[in-house]
Amino acid sequence: MKRRLLLVSNSTLHGSGYLAHCQQQISDFFGKDVKRVLFVPYALHDRDAYTRTARDKLKTLGYEVDGIHEASDPVEAIRKAEGIFIGGGNTFRLLKSLYDNKVLTEIRKRVMEDGVPYMGSSAGTNVATVSINTTNDMPIVYPPSFSAIGLVPFNINPHYLDPDPNSRHMGETREQRITQYHEEPDTPCVLGLREGSMLLVEGNKATLLGTTKARLFIRGKPTVEYAPGTDLSFLLTDTH
Amino acid sequence: MKRRLLLVSNSTLHGSGYLAHCQQQISDFFGKDVKRVLFVPYALHDRDAYTRTARDKLKTLGYEVDGIHEASDPVEAIRKAEGIFIGGGNTFRLLKSLYDNKVLTEIRKRVMEDGVPYMGSSAGTNVATVSINTTNDMPIVYPPSFSAIGLVPFNINPHYLDPDPNSRHMGETREQRITQYHEEPDTPCVLGLREGSMLLVEGNKATLLGTTKARLFIRGKPTVEYAPGTDLSFLLTDTH
Repeated sequence: MKRRLLLVSNSTLHGSGYLAHCQQQISDFFGKDVKRVLFVPYALHDRDAYTRTARDKLKTLGYEVDGIHEASDPVEAIRKAEGIFIGGGNTFRLLKSLYDNKVLTEIRKRVMEDGVPYMGSSAGTNVATVSINTTNDMPIVYPPSFSAIGLVPFNINPHYLDPDPNSRHMGETREQRITQYHEEPDTPCVLGLREGSMLLVEGNKATLLGTTKARLFIRGKPTVEYAPGTDLSFLLTDTH
Repeated sequence: MKRRLLLVSNSTLHGSGYLAHCQQQISDFFGKDVKRVLFVPYALHDRDAYTRTARDKLKTLGYEVDGIHEASDPVEAIRKAEGIFIGGGNTFRLLKSLYDNKVLTEIRKRVMEDGVPYMGSSAGTNVATVSINTTNDMPIVYPPSFSAIGLVPFNINPHYLDPDPNSRHMGETREQRITQYHEEPDTPCVLGLREGSMLLVEGNKATLLGTTKARLFIRGKPTVEYAPGTDLSFLLTDTH
């Protein structure tokens, strides 16, 4: 198993710039061997502007960026990619575009079989998991399925948010929403990644990085909190 | 056009009991002619418990409640209903169950052609509109479509929430989410119903009721705020 993943909760942390809070981890992740990163801007409407933002930031870290939408054949672009970065935005729009452009299978193959490093942030982290069933986004378009790329055997809830004890709003808390998900049969566990945290996966090893704790929801079991630095490799087996 | 709808943003307002903030409007809406209300508890996992909650509350207003899941034939239950109430919970679960039980068309027919009064709260309000594209809920199950019952030609965002200026959370605001929806082609307008507000529709007349303003989003136009009591009948034509 060659997979290497950097799954970031959020691309921008309050009070800092785009990808600033995880730039050291990005440099460590893509390293010196990757020169060009293929950026997938499908989650936002203005793909050119979004690619410029990613290009400008990754340039400061020493990487060139190609937008997948600039390629005449997106599947071929995946086949040639040295590294892949799928950015955040609307998860439904992103997943629908991945299906429309027929790139899901190729991304999975390149990451799982060829060891091409995959970085995702927010929606780009959601689509790396089993399904987008635990996204926070508004369902603005209808994808042909909620099944995602499946690079790990669990789901992630990015931007995980603790309840605000002072709120008078009566919408469900994030925890209540994930609990509703687990009322459905055969649902995988959900790792709630708070803003500031990220998961590094290297083969069959998973490590929580960043500055905030993560909260793990397993169907029928109590939730558990994990501190940055924790080895979460058990999540990569199907039998936890 | 015989339709009569009471579309409530939220079933419980902070600090008050279930349906307490809209009980006068419910009594006015179902009136004296309706004796029994057919309750649709599909949005929550425990349908029996949810039906008990609705039954206990509506009994205090003088109505008997039947749970649609208690009927051997849910379509037949819709055919016989004097009044329909679809409760809140998870909108994806609700819409999928409406499709699974094949009751969408019959509800539409009964409301639009026979004048059976329809009350919805939260998810039950969402499914009364064109589509569930503007729900706030987590997509815990995959419905066969996002198209909903279509009792009105626009969408509603229930539990509409203004941005919190003190928040350090970087997830999209509600307004940003609805703006992303309107980046997609041919999307209808969206009425943001804050908690405490509701829309009464009688034939081709629509009136905002309750204690909070509503915010209207029209694709490509500035948003507009409307106070309780405002006549919003223009929303019922397709050409606003």
